[in-house]
Amino acid sequence: MRIVSADTGGALLDGEYEPIGLIATAAVLVEKPFRTASLSIEKYSNPFDYDMSGRDAIKDETLLALKLAKKVKPDVIHLDSSLGGIPVRHLDDVTIDALRISDRGKAVWHDIGKELRPIVKRFWENTGIDVLAVGKSSVAVRVAEIYAGLYSTKWGIEYALKEGAARIGLPRYMKVELKRGILRGESLDPREGGLYGEIFPEVEEPVSIEVYPNPVARTFMVVEIKV
Amino acid sequence: MRIVSADTGGALLDGEYEPIGLIATAAVLVEKPFRTASLSIEKYSNPFDYDMSGRDAIKDETLLALKLAKKVKPDVIHLDSSLGGIPVRHLDDVTIDALRISDRGKAVWHDIGKELRPIVKRFWENTGIDVLAVGKSSVAVRVAEIYAGLYSTKWGIEYALKEGAARIGLPRYMKVELKRGILRGESLDPREGGLYGEIFPEVEEPVSIEVYPNPVARTFMVVEIKV
Amino acid sequence: MRIVSADTGGALLDGEYEPIGLIATAAVLVEKPFRTASLSIEKYSNPFDYDMSGRDAIKDETLLALKLAKKVKPDVIHLDSSLGGIPVRHLDDVTIDALRISDRGKAVWHDIGKELRPIVKRFWENTGIDVLAVGKSSVAVRVAEIYAGLYSTKWGIEYALKEGAARIGLPRYMKVELKRGILRGESLDPREGGLYGEIFPEVEEPVSIEVYPNPVARTFMVVEIKV
Repeated sequence: MRIVSADTGGALLDGEYEPIGLIATAAVLVEKPFRTASLSIEKYSNPFDYDMSGRDAIKDETLLALKLAKKVKPDVIHLDSSLGGIPVRHLDDVTIDALRISDRGKAVWHDIGKELRPIVKRFWENTGIDVLAVGKSSVAVRVAEIYAGLYSTKWGIEYALKEGAARIGLPRYMKVELKRGILRGESLDPREGGLYGEIFPEVEEPVSIEVYPNPVARTFMVVEIKV
Repeated sequence: MRIVSADTGGALLDGEYEPIGLIATAAVLVEKPFRTASLSIEKYSNPFDYDMSGRDAIKDETLLALKLAKKVKPDVIHLDSSLGGIPVRHLDDVTIDALRISDRGKAVWHDIGKELRPIVKRFWENTGIDVLAVGKSSVAVRVAEIYAGLYSTKWGIEYALKEGAARIGLPRYMKVELKRGILRGESLDPREGGLYGEIFPEVEEPVSIEVYPNPVARTFMVVEIKV
Repeated sequence: MRIVSADTGGALLDGEYEPIGLIATAAVLVEKPFRTASLSIEKYSNPFDYDMSGRDAIKDETLLALKLAKKVKPDVIHLDSSLGGIPVRHLDDVTIDALRISDRGKAVWHDIGKELRPIVKRFWENTGIDVLAVGKSSVAVRVAEIYAGLYSTKWGIEYALKEGAARIGLPRYMKVELKRGILRGESLDPREGGLYGEIFPEVEEPVSIEVYPNPVARTFMVVEIKV
C-alpha cells in the first residue's frame, strides 16, 4: 500500500507562545513499513496573514497531495479530515449534512466541497486514485504532520537568519533536531510506533536551536532559533 | 491483591490492513507488582467466521476467566467492560437500563446478561469471588489484552507455517518480539508503567517477523510473518 | 514568561488501592525552558479527613500559589481548573453560569468563587498579576502536579517511619525515585517533553521504596514505602 497524504502545521508564535499563523503544508508519500516518507514536497503560507478557519489548510492540503500523487501514483490519498474515510468525491451537500460532525465542520465542507469535489472527482476518473477523508486514524496523515513541522522549522531558520530569532510552535508531541545538516523530526508518542521524518535545510550560517515544552500548550513543543 | 482477567484481541488482517476477525482470548492471573501475568491460558476463535458485535468476545472472556479462577482462586475477576466496576451478578434488566452507557451496549448486556449472570452468581456463591465489569481502568485487563496479542501472534506463526504468510493486527499500542524461543509483548504506552507479557510458542521452523505501524489504524501495530 | 502554579495530588491508599484522601498541595515557579520548577513550596492536608468535593483543593491551591507569587512576582498564575484560561477575578455568578462546564463544576465555583474572587482581585490590583483558570493545557500546572506527587511521597516516607509502611497513589503517569538523598519525580508521558521535579526529603533512616502500577487505576503508579 502506497499512500499520499498532506497536512498543515507549525505556527509562528508570539511572545506569549500563542500562534500568529500557520507556516507550512507538507505532502508525503508513505510506503511500507509506514514510519516515514519516501518523498515529500512543501508549500509555505504567510503566517502573518493566515486564515485560521481551516478552509485554506484543507484546500492547500488537497491540491498539494494531488500534485505529489500525479508524480508518484499512489494507491490512495489520505486527507486530514476525520470523516470516517469517506471519498471526498462523494461529499455533495446532502452527504455533508448527513455526516456526524459539528455544524462548523459542515459549514467548512459545504464551502470548500464545491471547489474541491470536481477536482478530486476528475483526478479519480483519470487515475482511479481516491481521496479519502480519514484524518487522525491514518499514519500517513501523521507523517505529513511531522513533515509540516520540519518545513516550518526550516522556514523558521530562514526567518531567523533575516530577523535574528524565531519561535516556532511544532505540531502536537513532536521534536526536531539539527545535526550535520540533517533536520530530523520525531514523534514523542511511542504508541505511534516510531514515526519520524528528515529534511535537508541547507543552512549555511550556524544557528542555535532549542526545543522545549510550550508552557501554555501541554504536549506541544517550541523550537527557538537564534542566529 | 490477586486478579484474574480476560480479554480478546489480535485480528487477522486483509491486504488493506482491515480486520477479517479476531483471533484469541486470553485469561491471566496478575499479582503484585502488576506488570505481567504469573499464569495465562488462551482460547482461539475462527477469525474467518467471527461475530464482530462483541457478544462472543465478552462470553468467551467471562468463561475463560472463570476457568482460570477456579484453578488459582484470585481475590477478584476483572472483565473488559467499562461499567464502573459493577459486579456482573447485579446486572439484571433494570440495572442494565439504568447504566450510563450506549443503547448498543445495553442491548449487548441484556442479551448476554441472561446467560452469564446465573453462571457468575453461582461462582460467587461457591467461592466468594466476584466478577467486576471494570474495563479500561484495570491494569489486569490491559495485561490480558497484551496476552491476547501474544497468542494471536502465535496463531499467526502457525497459520504462516501452513499458508506461507500472515498479517496480524495487534491490540492497541503494543509490540511483539520473537527471540530465543520467547515471544515477548510490550505495551508501547510508558504511562502504563511497563506492562508486558511472555509466552513460548515452540516454533520449529525459522520464521521472519516484522512489526510496523498499521497505516490505517494509528497507534496499532501489524505483525507480518513470513516463512 | 515566569509562571506560578499550584496543584493538589498524591493520595494515601487503602489495602484495595483505593484513595483514602489527598495529601499535598504544591505551588511552583516554572521558568523557561519550562521542564521543572525553579522553586516550590508545599502544604499538607490530612488524608484521613479530606474533602473529596474539590472545594478544599482549589482553595488551598489558590492561596498557596498567591503565597509563592508574593515572593517571586511571576508574570501570571495558572490554576488547575479548565475554564479556558479565564481570569478568576472575572468569575462572578453570571459568568460562572455561562461557562460550558458541568453543573457540579458550576456549583463548586459558585461556592468557592465568593471567597476567592475578592482575594484574587485585590492581588491583581496590587501587583498586576492575574490568576487564570487554565487547567490541563498548562505545563506549569502539570509541573505542580508532579511536585504534589513528590511532597506526597515525602509525607509517605515520614508516615512509614512512624507506622512501618505506607502506600501512596501518585498523580497520573508519573514515577518517583529516591537516590542519594534526592527524591526525583518524572512524567511517564514523553509527549510532555521531559517534565520532572526534585526535592530533598532529608530521610535519616533507610527506607525501601517500590514503584509499581496501581492495579485498579491504569496509568497511575503506587509508591510503597517500608522501613
